[in-house]
Amino acid sequence: MNNLKDMVFSAKNIAVISHINPDGDSLGSALALAVTLSTINSNVTLYINDVLPAKYEFLPEVHRFIMFKEEELEEFDITFVLDCGDIDRLGSSRSLADRTKNLVNIDHHVSNNHYGDINIIDVKASSTSQMVYHLIDEILQLPITPEVATCLYVGIVTDTGSFKYDNTSPETHRVVAKLLELGVDIEDITIHLFQNNSYKGVKFLGEFLKSLEILIDGKLALATISLQMLNKYSLDPDETDSIINYGRDIKGVEVAVTLKEVDKNLIKISLRSKTNIDVNEIAKAFGGGGHKKASGATLKGTIEEVRERVVEEVRKAFMHNGDGSHCAIGIRNR
Amino acid sequence: MNNLKDMVFSAKNIAVISHINPDGDSLGSALALAVTLSTINSNVTLYINDVLPAKYEFLPEVHRFIMFKEEELEEFDITFVLDCGDIDRLGSSRSLADRTKNLVNIDHHVSNNHYGDINIIDVKASSTSQMVYHLIDEILQLPITPEVATCLYVGIVTDTGSFKYDNTSPETHRVVAKLLELGVDIEDITIHLFQNNSYKGVKFLGEFLKSLEILIDGKLALATISLQMLNKYSLDPDETDSIINYGRDIKGVEVAVTLKEVDKNLIKISLRSKTNIDVNEIAKAFGGGGHKKASGATLKGTIEEVRERVVEEVRKAFMHNGDGSHCAIGIRNR
Ligand SMILES: [Mn+2]
Ligand SMILES: [Mn+2]
Repeated sequence: MNNLKDMVFSAKNIAVISHINPDGDSLGSALALAVTLSTINSNVTLYINDVLPAKYEFLPEVHRFIMFKEEELEEFDITFVLDCGDIDRLGSSRSLADRTKNLVNIDHHVSNNHYGDINIIDVKASSTSQMVYHLIDEILQLPITPEVATCLYVGIVTDTGSFKYDNTSPETHRVVAKLLELGVDIEDITIHLFQNNSYKGVKFLGEFLKSLEILIDGKLALATISLQMLNKYSLDPDETDSIINYGRDIKGVEVAVTLKEVDKNLIKISLRSKTNIDVNEIAKAFGGGGHKKASGATLKGTIEEVRERVVEEVRKAFMHNGDGSHCAIGIRNR
Repeated sequence: MNNLKDMVFSAKNIAVISHINPDGDSLGSALALAVTLSTINSNVTLYINDVLPAKYEFLPEVHRFIMFKEEELEEFDITFVLDCGDIDRLGSSRSLADRTKNLVNIDHHVSNNHYGDINIIDVKASSTSQMVYHLIDEILQLPITPEVATCLYVGIVTDTGSFKYDNTSPETHRVVAKLLELGVDIEDITIHLFQNNSYKGVKFLGEFLKSLEILIDGKLALATISLQMLNKYSLDPDETDSIINYGRDIKGVEVAVTLKEVDKNLIKISLRSKTNIDVNEIAKAFGGGGHKKASGATLKGTIEEVRERVVEEVRKAFMHNGDGSHCAIGIRNR
């Protein structure tokens, strides 16, 4: 990797970019890398290709993000593309690749298809932020400021679900120990990331939980979001996406389903599994897809009609799985 | 600490105990220490002085806990008292101290009053479990099995709120890195600790959120729990205690209050602060108390009467604090 260090130190100009619909890892890793590179190169441009979610506005040096504009594009010696399994994750800003001499692809997704001139892929890393820590510390050998440490911490804590997901490794904790030593204010970050919910989102959750029911001997949790509820609260999609976890996280529940009425007679279903039930198979039966533990589909019909079809399909999945009840807990199949 | 090692290795018998109303740290640290000591001494007794909460029944070797009984008490060479700031935290099992030659007090609470013959107090440790890791590894120099690592991990993850509270230090993450290397199954633990909620608890949350309102320019979140709700759901106290966080964690909210109708005309109030508003002062005005960030009191009157008095007192606190709105975020005073 000495090549990369030399390349970075001799570059005329550098761009850093991450994916559309940005999350904590993409924003944290990009900001950390761009801020650090700026200490050795005055021509570093940090692009964003989407709206910055309000919850990340507290990130240090967040003003450095520049909205990507095709027409103003110069040519770059190096472009770092972060946290993107596929170059298409850049959306319209993927044209940046054509104006770049060396495309450096840094990512932790298993699906990464090595689209870069240089590809640094670590599928065992919890996050791109964890990888950027090593890039800065070991490859570039540049100091990490408290601000940069904060950005990297935010990327790691969000991509690991506060160190709960199984992408969390001993190395993740070792890196975080070093970041905390460099001066990360955990309490401040916790307030911004986890104690800053919208009032309407909380009231929406109340209504959602009212509709929540458990079926099939407590193994299926099902809740509905009506068009009227969606209109009443007008939430961002990221505020409604994780709400299904309240069903999944009930004792004995193996599959959780949310029916969201996105339009008249158009229902979007989300499925989550906590056990060895493969919800990807259930979603496929309705022309959808996803992963074993998380999937979705869109169906035509009223909430009642769709509800009946989904419950029936989940019931079939439990039957094919034998009596799934004995594996409600502790079985892993990732 | 070589004394302690010698003492442990030459002890005829050893008891391990922790506090009443046990939490993850007390159970995890006690179990870890007792299981490890059992590898060098066949006379190790692990006492519990309260009901084991169902959520911790998954802990490895949990069957080793024996319900404390005064009348069956033998005399012990060493008794380890874990995670207790005061010997009275043992409840009626504090009599164990009188039957012990060497009382070893291991704890991380600032309030610890050094009641042991040997006192190992580290107020900077995240948890007693983090301290027991060092005790086993460095002082006793005994191996840590995957089962023991699991118990210690559970103690640390629960006492730090999944590494979010500011008792989390670089050392916490370094210890956790080592525990994961020893073989901790994070996914299994996550299911048991965080994805195992009761259905009635979730429905209760729905009703609670329905009653939630924000007042005083969005700076106060207030919710009520009626006697009828309490009777309808009959939850354990630990299922209702943390519910106040839903109010506290709303953007702009500085103080959250829950009014719980524990009896006719008897209202228990809980207060939480996210900023520099001192809710201990507010609780004191009603004859209660607690900490700056968490306090409580019990008042006579109807929900409506108490509600009015509490809102008035919180309003006064905001006024004395100047216009608190500018410090809604980022101010710490622990
Ligand atoms: Mn990522
Ligand atoms: Mn503790």
